[in-house]
Amino acid sequence: MAALKNDTFIRALLRQPVPYTPVWIMRQAGRYLPEYNATRKRAGSFLGLAKNPDFATEVTLQPLARFPLDAAILFSDILTVPDAMGLGLYFAEGEGPKFERPLRDEAAVRALRVPEPRESLGYVLDAVKQIRGALGNRVPLIGFSGSPYTLACYMIEGGGSDDFRTIKSMLYARPRLLHQVLDINARAVTDYLNAQIEAGAQAVMVFDTWGGALSDTAYREFSLEYLRRVIAGLHREWNGEPVPNIVFTKGGGLWLEDIAGIGCNAVGLDWTVNLDAARRQVGDRVALQGNLDPAVLFSDPATIRNEVATVLRQFGKGEGHVFNLGHGISQFTPPGHVGALVDAVHELSRAYH
Amino acid sequence: MAALKNDTFIRALLRQPVPYTPVWIMRQAGRYLPEYNATRKRAGSFLGLAKNPDFATEVTLQPLARFPLDAAILFSDILTVPDAMGLGLYFAEGEGPKFERPLRDEAAVRALRVPEPRESLGYVLDAVKQIRGALGNRVPLIGFSGSPYTLACYMIEGGGSDDFRTIKSMLYARPRLLHQVLDINARAVTDYLNAQIEAGAQAVMVFDTWGGALSDTAYREFSLEYLRRVIAGLHREWNGEPVPNIVFTKGGGLWLEDIAGIGCNAVGLDWTVNLDAARRQVGDRVALQGNLDPAVLFSDPATIRNEVATVLRQFGKGEGHVFNLGHGISQFTPPGHVGALVDAVHELSRAYH
Repeated sequence: MAALKNDTFIRALLRQPVPYTPVWIMRQAGRYLPEYNATRKRAGSFLGLAKNPDFATEVTLQPLARFPLDAAILFSDILTVPDAMGLGLYFAEGEGPKFERPLRDEAAVRALRVPEPRESLGYVLDAVKQIRGALGNRVPLIGFSGSPYTLACYMIEGGGSDDFRTIKSMLYARPRLLHQVLDINARAVTDYLNAQIEAGAQAVMVFDTWGGALSDTAYREFSLEYLRRVIAGLHREWNGEPVPNIVFTKGGGLWLEDIAGIGCNAVGLDWTVNLDAARRQVGDRVALQGNLDPAVLFSDPATIRNEVATVLRQFGKGEGHVFNLGHGISQFTPPGHVGALVDAVHELSRAYH
Repeated sequence: MAALKNDTFIRALLRQPVPYTPVWIMRQAGRYLPEYNATRKRAGSFLGLAKNPDFATEVTLQPLARFPLDAAILFSDILTVPDAMGLGLYFAEGEGPKFERPLRDEAAVRALRVPEPRESLGYVLDAVKQIRGALGNRVPLIGFSGSPYTLACYMIEGGGSDDFRTIKSMLYARPRLLHQVLDINARAVTDYLNAQIEAGAQAVMVFDTWGGALSDTAYREFSLEYLRRVIAGLHREWNGEPVPNIVFTKGGGLWLEDIAGIGCNAVGLDWTVNLDAARRQVGDRVALQGNLDPAVLFSDPATIRNEVATVLRQFGKGEGHVFNLGHGISQFTPPGHVGALVDAVHELSRAYH
């Protein structure tokens, strides 16, 4: 194992000293980059891109060629696991992800199985290996998955939803049935993330995109509990190297202390959270990742610099901060503004370390 | 002035003793009711309904004829104020509200004026008077408006938005320009709510639907500050009767203590907030309104009763709770389930008073 040339991201997740605050950007390989759109065009579709290790490697590396980011993140989708369960992931033009065979009855739930990643998700593991090779230890590679509850939302709704009517009807009226789905999802996500780690992922992140739409009581029972199980089952090191993990519940600021208590290394925060207050809440239990409003990137380099300064000042001096947006970058972001962001983080953060 | 036959809602907002927890439902006069849809059909459109005092009175009273609700709420739209400013509110079929002439440049901002409610919003004031007459002091009538920031979102975006790209670009790059809009909006909302009170509204609520999409720093500067100004300018009594007010920032749970500090009588809470924790945070400064997940109403009467019990138990013994959903009722709600909710609140809450 060659040592990482830039291990600031891993060190920050472990709350170890770093010379500056590392930064990466959720959805950094994405539609705001013309080179991404060109590759996607060649691939024919989003899934054509995500399921082909050559293309996935190419787009994963694109933002790193432009910006001195401190981590790469596997190009993939949060819904690969239910696709591997046989639900049939597809993308309708101009809409979000959908499933051909959503879970709509008890028979479908009873037929669900935990997929063997090496059998049905080999294309992801191949991409991880190939990206690691292409990265050549410049920066670490992040693997990821959707959370058990977020996967269940798509599996049961059959796609995105404004009101989560179908899954919430099940949650309130048939809670045990939903728990069966979540139990399978938790085991599947754990196996999948461990397989990514074994293939070369050097950190992993669980995206709980929809947990924040739950009530306080329901969040604890139907999302947090299964995040806890995933975290408990993850490899903490591989080949003698630590493999830290990050949990991100969008809209989960109210539950920060609870999330920090499930054993994860770091908690992702959206921009509604005050980082100073957050840090006081979690103490030295976890690192924090975030949390610039992605809309700041619509402004101008001077404003971006000011807003970066505000986020850094809110976190304050000391270790345990990974800079990121509070949500995925918008496709309407001018690429040059990302450069301004990364430079501002690297430059302004030195005073805090 | 005849005394209210049922003043539990007003008393709860003032944290005075009540025999049971009063309940009303956001959007209680709405599309889940077949009689509402019939009236809307006769009116020809949503705006035809909202702008005609006869129709507005008819639909405001419809849910009260079905359910023993403890308050009526004026049937109107949160965007009447910018419509009165000349922006041209309209509803495209299957989409949300839109403006024909959104604010897109400095000249448009400079041309904005605080409308005189009696001149340009007379149809709302007429509806208030007519509804008060029709209610005959059975239950109080709630008046309302969108918050200064939420109005600005629609005025600047021209309609709903996923990412608030236009207003947030202005917020970050041209903050003073946005402050000009918000200053005008705050004065307009204050005048408008006071005019509703003078016409007969016995409580008022400010809906900050989109403040929760702001960063912590931006929320305080661009939404909360203007909510504070509105609250500071509102009549606190009229004709010798107290007129309590309620502030509701959807997704604002993280800012509860700050909202409770702006001088309002009550804070509305969505379902992500734990009412027990919320009550400990606000102490006896404000009453709390909420916060059942509207999706509970998709389940069944027994489940609804259990979930109502959970919300009541979380608030606990004592005064200062108005039961409500955490957001507007869904059009897909079976009307009978609303009856189950109201009955459960009335019955189960007696043990807490």
